Amino acid sequence: MNGAKASGPIPPEFAGAPELTVAGRPFGAWIAQAGGTPLYLYDFGMIAARLARLRAAMPEIVDIHYAIKANPLPALLAAVAPLVGGFDVASGGELEKALAAMPADRISFAGPGKRDGELEAAIRAGATVNLESEGEARRALAIGDRTGIRPRLAVRVNPDFELRGSGMKMGGRASPFGIDAARVPALVRQIVAAGADWRGFHIFAGSQALDSGAITETQAATVTLAARLAGEAGAVPPLVNLGGGFGIPYFAGDLPVNVEGVGMALGQRLAALPPELAGSRFAIELGRWIVGEAGVYLVRVVDRKESAGEVFLVTDGGLHHHLAATGNFGMVVRRNYPVAVAGRMADAAEEVVTVVGPLCTPLDRLADRVALPRAEAGDVIAIFASGAYGPSASPSAFLGHGPAMELLAGAINS
Amino acid sequence: MNGAKASGPIPPEFAGAPELTVAGRPFGAWIAQAGGTPLYLYDFGMIAARLARLRAAMPEIVDIHYAIKANPLPALLAAVAPLVGGFDVASGGELEKALAAMPADRISFAGPGKRDGELEAAIRAGATVNLESEGEARRALAIGDRTGIRPRLAVRVNPDFELRGSGMKMGGRASPFGIDAARVPALVRQIVAAGADWRGFHIFAGSQALDSGAITETQAATVTLAARLAGEAGAVPPLVNLGGGFGIPYFAGDLPVNVEGVGMALGQRLAALPPELAGSRFAIELGRWIVGEAGVYLVRVVDRKESAGEVFLVTDGGLHHHLAATGNFGMVVRRNYPVAVAGRMADAAEEVVTVVGPLCTPLDRLADRVALPRAEAGDVIAIFASGAYGPSASPSAFLGHGPAMELLAGAINS
Repeated sequence: MNGAKASGPIPPEFAGAPELTVAGRPFGAWIAQAGGTPLYLYDFGMIAARLARLRAAMPEIVDIHYAIKANPLPALLAAVAPLVGGFDVASGGELEKALAAMPADRISFAGPGKRDGELEAAIRAGATVNLESEGEARRALAIGDRTGIRPRLAVRVNPDFELRGSGMKMGGRASPFGIDAARVPALVRQIVAAGADWRGFHIFAGSQALDSGAITETQAATVTLAARLAGEAGAVPPLVNLGGGFGIPYFAGDLPVNVEGVGMALGQRLAALPPELAGSRFAIELGRWIVGEAGVYLVRVVDRKESAGEVFLVTDGGLHHHLAATGNFGMVVRRNYPVAVAGRMADAAEEVVTVVGPLCTPLDRLADRVALPRAEAGDVIAIFASGAYGPSASPSAFLGHGPAMELLAGAINS
Repeated sequence: MNGAKASGPIPPEFAGAPELTVAGRPFGAWIAQAGGTPLYLYDFGMIAARLARLRAAMPEIVDIHYAIKANPLPALLAAVAPLVGGFDVASGGELEKALAAMPADRISFAGPGKRDGELEAAIRAGATVNLESEGEARRALAIGDRTGIRPRLAVRVNPDFELRGSGMKMGGRASPFGIDAARVPALVRQIVAAGADWRGFHIFAGSQALDSGAITETQAATVTLAARLAGEAGAVPPLVNLGGGFGIPYFAGDLPVNVEGVGMALGQRLAALPPELAGSRFAIELGRWIVGEAGVYLVRVVDRKESAGEVFLVTDGGLHHHLAATGNFGMVVRRNYPVAVAGRMADAAEEVVTVVGPLCTPLDRLADRVALPRAEAGDVIAIFASGAYGPSASPSAFLGHGPAMELLAGAINS
């Protein structure tokens, strides 16, 4: 429509029906069950289907890990745990949540600046600590000595390349993450000599990449780097975590990752393993790709108002629950997430509207000049692609509106 | 130093001493009292001094309101309440906090998308509701009828001008905030005719402006607009809230607002009031200006590491507590807040370092390539200008590190 900005692609599982249906029930039934809006609704069936597709696409030698930072809802962790090989956590708080759903020996803990208390909790539990610096290695070994527990330690490598086209580059430059590749072999020898249980490498080069060729290229480079470092260290890594980085389509023009193609190329690369990695297993760790498209953020229109010829739908949810959708989380240019009027999914657009939240700031804009069927006060707006980095990555206390509700739909207990 | 980026100006009250002192006590004593870091520390004496200066600068006919969204810490609200004429709130949650510290008749509630429950709570308490649309006016009047309580209603105006040079423009265009000026007189007549207690106008044109001339210009235009609207409505507004918008220096080169100059110009403008405003009182509402410079965010270095020739100080606090300082809250270009090594405030810079938090994201950067005295693990880094839009405006649950502590220093009970 005239003057409309594009919005992102609605995931195919949600498109087409006359009203939004999640896990076989209309959105209104879920809102009634939750007790109202704003509500984050996650479709467990979609998560399970993505994991099944990924498992089928990836070589057997590659484990699939879930990076719980993407969505740490306890019910979701419990439902996802049986479907993945491990959880990756990024803090002591996440470690606690992970331990409630997953055995410690399948949990790994990465993140710069781990405090002694967090290291000790991980070592006592038996989780793998991905070491981010030589200083952290010294502290972890000291805790092992003090507690008499043999720590499970992996080394996070700051690779000398980046994931091309990724939204967040985490390699190829000076970085707070991991240890520069050149210093890694010495550290591995030191860990092994100290008697720790060396678990291998963690190599993460970027995230939110949609370019399948770039992902494949990075995975190949990661395998090559791991082999070189293992050779120099003189030790075969039990596990090489190849990182993640698979993005999801958020914006107009975004195309999904070709996971079958990525899996096939990775299988070819791993079929002829160099001797330095003979006996190694591999892992990819994904957060956003597993849960992102399965989530919908539902907000209700509180007021429909006009100003200077433009229509604003003021809703009961906004930036305080969904910072990323408002374009305020690491984006330079604000673009529209996929959006719809939940009760009129199949109707043609009738007008151009801006969907805002209740906060007293112009930053609180969920959809900017999008073409939608007409919505009135009381109608529900759905923001798609909201399963990852939603409520847990938003300033929920901002302006005192309170947190959003969250429901996992379609799991055994929901 | 070579390769260093500038950081912002340390507020004069904190500068100069060999180690950071807040409300007469060294920072370490406050950390001990709080039980550790990360810690937000607010110097109540600085807040009180700013309010006294502002009160002296402003004409008697202008009340000073505190917009609690800037910092809603309950102890701070209790300490600030006796020093200001009113609190401005932006949600039902903020209303509850305000009511614990301030009589309802000095509280006003602005914000688009107020839900019926929030409107009813405000009307029952006797707070003033700043109406944001005709639809909200209808709902508020209906709640008045239903409850038998005469609602106190003001009209928020979307002005036909903006605050020049403000960080967040909120006028002069199509907006979700307030009612377009042209439609305001009819709404005022309707509110008065319905028997509500009409409290006046709320006109807010922007925020975080450092240009004193632009503030004066906007205040003058706001008075003129209020007079015109009052004349067209045929009713004298009991209160004209002129908005706020005074910024504070965050970045290198920022200069503070000349509040004495602004107050003098406003006094001149209000000395010759047009008949449409004869008997009106005025208010300015400020948040950031009152509390922003009085706050320090204290984080402890957990790890000092080098990567590709650069030094990173990895601290126990970051983006999850202080989104704005990492440049991820409405800023296009990331710049450094004022920063220091708390124990070495008077020492010369020795190296260029990047201060990051513990989150697994490159966004978590508190200070980028700043020149500081050398700091080791265990040292405390202070981020200044952190009294407004800190923990309440940050994604505290992100990655499960938990919230920051907060202490009000120098108030009677602290």
